[in-house]
Amino acid sequence: MVKVTVWHETVPAEESEGVRKVYPEGLGAAVAAFLKVENFQTRCAYLGEKDDGLPEEVLRDTDALIWWGHGKHHLVSDETVKRVVEYVNRGMGAIFLHSAHLAKPFKALLGTSCTLQWREAGEREIVWAVNPAHPIAAGLDAHFTIEHEEMYGEPFDIPEPDELVFIGWFKGGNVFRCGAAYRRGRGKVFYFQPGHETYPVYRQKEVRHVICNAVRWAAPVSVAAPLTCPHAKNSIETLT
Amino acid sequence: MVKVTVWHETVPAEESEGVRKVYPEGLGAAVAAFLKVENFQTRCAYLGEKDDGLPEEVLRDTDALIWWGHGKHHLVSDETVKRVVEYVNRGMGAIFLHSAHLAKPFKALLGTSCTLQWREAGEREIVWAVNPAHPIAAGLDAHFTIEHEEMYGEPFDIPEPDELVFIGWFKGGNVFRCGAAYRRGRGKVFYFQPGHETYPVYRQKEVRHVICNAVRWAAPVSVAAPLTCPHAKNSIETLT
Amino acid sequence: MVKVTVWHETVPAEESEGVRKVYPEGLGAAVAAFLKVENFQTRCAYLGEKDDGLPEEVLRDTDALIWWGHGKHHLVSDETVKRVVEYVNRGMGAIFLHSAHLAKPFKALLGTSCTLQWREAGEREIVWAVNPAHPIAAGLDAHFTIEHEEMYGEPFDIPEPDELVFIGWFKGGNVFRCGAAYRRGRGKVFYFQPGHETYPVYRQKEVRHVICNAVRWAAPVSVAAPLTCPHAKNSIETLT
Amino acid sequence: MVKVTVWHETVPAEESEGVRKVYPEGLGAAVAAFLKVENFQTRCAYLGEKDDGLPEEVLRDTDALIWWGHGKHHLVSDETVKRVVEYVNRGMGAIFLHSAHLAKPFKALLGTSCTLQWREAGEREIVWAVNPAHPIAAGLDAHFTIEHEEMYGEPFDIPEPDELVFIGWFKGGNVFRCGAAYRRGRGKVFYFQPGHETYPVYRQKEVRHVICNAVRWAAPVSVAAPLTCPHAKNSIETLT
Repeated sequence: MVKVTVWHETVPAEESEGVRKVYPEGLGAAVAAFLKVENFQTRCAYLGEKDDGLPEEVLRDTDALIWWGHGKHHLVSDETVKRVVEYVNRGMGAIFLHSAHLAKPFKALLGTSCTLQWREAGEREIVWAVNPAHPIAAGLDAHFTIEHEEMYGEPFDIPEPDELVFIGWFKGGNVFRCGAAYRRGRGKVFYFQPGHETYPVYRQKEVRHVICNAVRWAAPVSVAAPLTCPHAKNSIETLT
Repeated sequence: MVKVTVWHETVPAEESEGVRKVYPEGLGAAVAAFLKVENFQTRCAYLGEKDDGLPEEVLRDTDALIWWGHGKHHLVSDETVKRVVEYVNRGMGAIFLHSAHLAKPFKALLGTSCTLQWREAGEREIVWAVNPAHPIAAGLDAHFTIEHEEMYGEPFDIPEPDELVFIGWFKGGNVFRCGAAYRRGRGKVFYFQPGHETYPVYRQKEVRHVICNAVRWAAPVSVAAPLTCPHAKNSIETLT
Repeated sequence: MVKVTVWHETVPAEESEGVRKVYPEGLGAAVAAFLKVENFQTRCAYLGEKDDGLPEEVLRDTDALIWWGHGKHHLVSDETVKRVVEYVNRGMGAIFLHSAHLAKPFKALLGTSCTLQWREAGEREIVWAVNPAHPIAAGLDAHFTIEHEEMYGEPFDIPEPDELVFIGWFKGGNVFRCGAAYRRGRGKVFYFQPGHETYPVYRQKEVRHVICNAVRWAAPVSVAAPLTCPHAKNSIETLT
Repeated sequence: MVKVTVWHETVPAEESEGVRKVYPEGLGAAVAAFLKVENFQTRCAYLGEKDDGLPEEVLRDTDALIWWGHGKHHLVSDETVKRVVEYVNRGMGAIFLHSAHLAKPFKALLGTSCTLQWREAGEREIVWAVNPAHPIAAGLDAHFTIEHEEMYGEPFDIPEPDELVFIGWFKGGNVFRCGAAYRRGRGKVFYFQPGHETYPVYRQKEVRHVICNAVRWAAPVSVAAPLTCPHAKNSIETLT
């Protein structure tokens, strides 16, 4: 059974009024809820908890980490960033949602500024699957529509994705690489843009479907031997 | 001086009425004209000529080949396709415009069906530079608008581009990877979607700018030794 | 159950003496045999059969096609090449072994000459997994040794692989990208170099392990809707 | 004129005895010297200087940064790492040599552990150009030999390179992706493995040739408008 940890910067009781209107149970809990329905073993983690909610024992027990953050990126400690990046490199999947494009671990995994253009106008987005054979697009039609979403637009300062899965169209004239897949070390990383906190985007079935697909794709498939540490006292032997 | 050959399926005198309204001089000649202004050494080649307009002596003398075709893809001979693909592999640049997404040499270089969705409604397209540091986007703003264009939309059945340079937004709700760069052998390949034949797209300065940038990028930069033929009588010697 | 078709250019009865010494049952049959042990539903196909052994009804019933050819590439018809390429684009996996680097469908899928350097000296090859987290490398150590193999060396004229899985080291001083993965349309393509016909390479457990992994990886994972044909009479509707 | 800054962790006067035997002038100065011969405007920078040798005013005046470090990676401050990464993202080229695979800015740009296997046995390396048309391989033969080099071997924990240029063969049975190119933001990054400090590797003409090519390739080619900051007070306007 795939183990998912949903990380959110705000505990349910402290969500803003705008979020509570849409997700009375809290945004993180809302995401966790639909994952549980799909039979993922799901837990929530919050910024205010021990080690920013992601101590070793949690990461060690996580196949895929989902990350949603917006206003509190700067409160995540450098130690937590380092720990998350290491676990991804060891094989843990990581899925960054919406405003997590500026989450510290995402930027640390990608090596770029991850900046973009934006406009909060509740406009229509149409999400197109440009790689329909990708496992994250499985079971979807060629496109689906989100009636009200914050616009995120190009240029999006990310490395060329290993696999570009979705491109978003926004009514106001913008486009966005809204679903982008990377491999880092033994781990897989997926960025998915939908999910502004004051629209009920995570109530929509296609969005949930993508996130569930992404969890299955990102979870490690095999146990591999650890990579050799280059600072071991003894270097490796000649093979010939 | 960079040598460009502009290939077009129809000689000026036989262009349809729709094309002649926009390009009285012929579409191929119109493209060649703005390249000449940029001091490229430019010639036109047409399907009806010897060896489909692209005999050895022309390809040998070409740094970048521009290809526009639509209704006569099937009339290009397999020998010509093979010859063009070989010259690209040896280092000749190739730029395929608009409906040349179904040109035989393009499909042969990419290995996919290159199909897409389309709609002819003369709608607005906004072209976004998603890789603003790419030489083909140099000197452009983040976006430019084409007031009337045929819609080409995803899913576009191409291999993951080596470098995705532009994404197009269409008023009718579609997106398209409208500027995609590949390397094949020692040659560079660029696909650029703008240019439906009955709109004056090649009169627009940003479109011309992109095509000129693409020619500079696609032209070979260095002379390298020929690759070893695997069927040479003598195989290579041991190096150790 | 994954359905595999093993294509070979020579029927067992006509194998050369050199091959028969190593594979009395025929090279194709030898490959098919270890796949059957892994519970793949396996059949053999040969060049001399109807439609070069790969008629529609066979391809339609194949999840992954394994291709081994060497001296008879030129005898494969253009129709067969086109048919195989189309089925790959629709989702059929394709695994090209050893000298199939010059097989027509492989070159058609990649768009390059696929030439390389070679030396037949029965020298030692060490195969290194450079992407240990890739499904095709699952369960392997970081390297394995083939005591006697034909040398295939760089430069190998292929497009940049979507995923480079293995690099081979040869005693005589050469290196080779010996395991390279591509996506074409909805299909997956893997090239794997080991397997010169006069050495018992396909008797070696690591080589078999890689090929079995490759079959599992290449088989289609989901049924997706067919891509829209661009030449349909009616184009698509506006979405907005 | 391209401006190069050669960063080295040790000033000439403090180089170890082993290094001084090979590079009496200091390793950093030795690299700078051959760059000057090629008419690059070259300066040296050292760890012990202000802001680790790379204050704003130096980075602002640098087209390509060359980085060599080994034992003092941990002494580079986090501020310096952040500053270097930002300048790369804005367009500065960065070339990391040999043991700089563990330099903090390199790991920060790539997002992986960048670990590898190693053996210090002064063994022969043969460097193969696997992408002979790449500007960094221009003017080279298909391979060149370094008689004595430290072995660096796979698995090398890096993201799939945007362009793999060289693969190294080591006498002891190892292979290594020894020349790997990446794009990050508007900047280019190249890793090149040759250059163990106690062998005269930077005296060898092919190695110098590669580094000079890399500098030309990595230097920014065009001035582009700054990317929009996502935290600007005003978001962007609708375009339609």
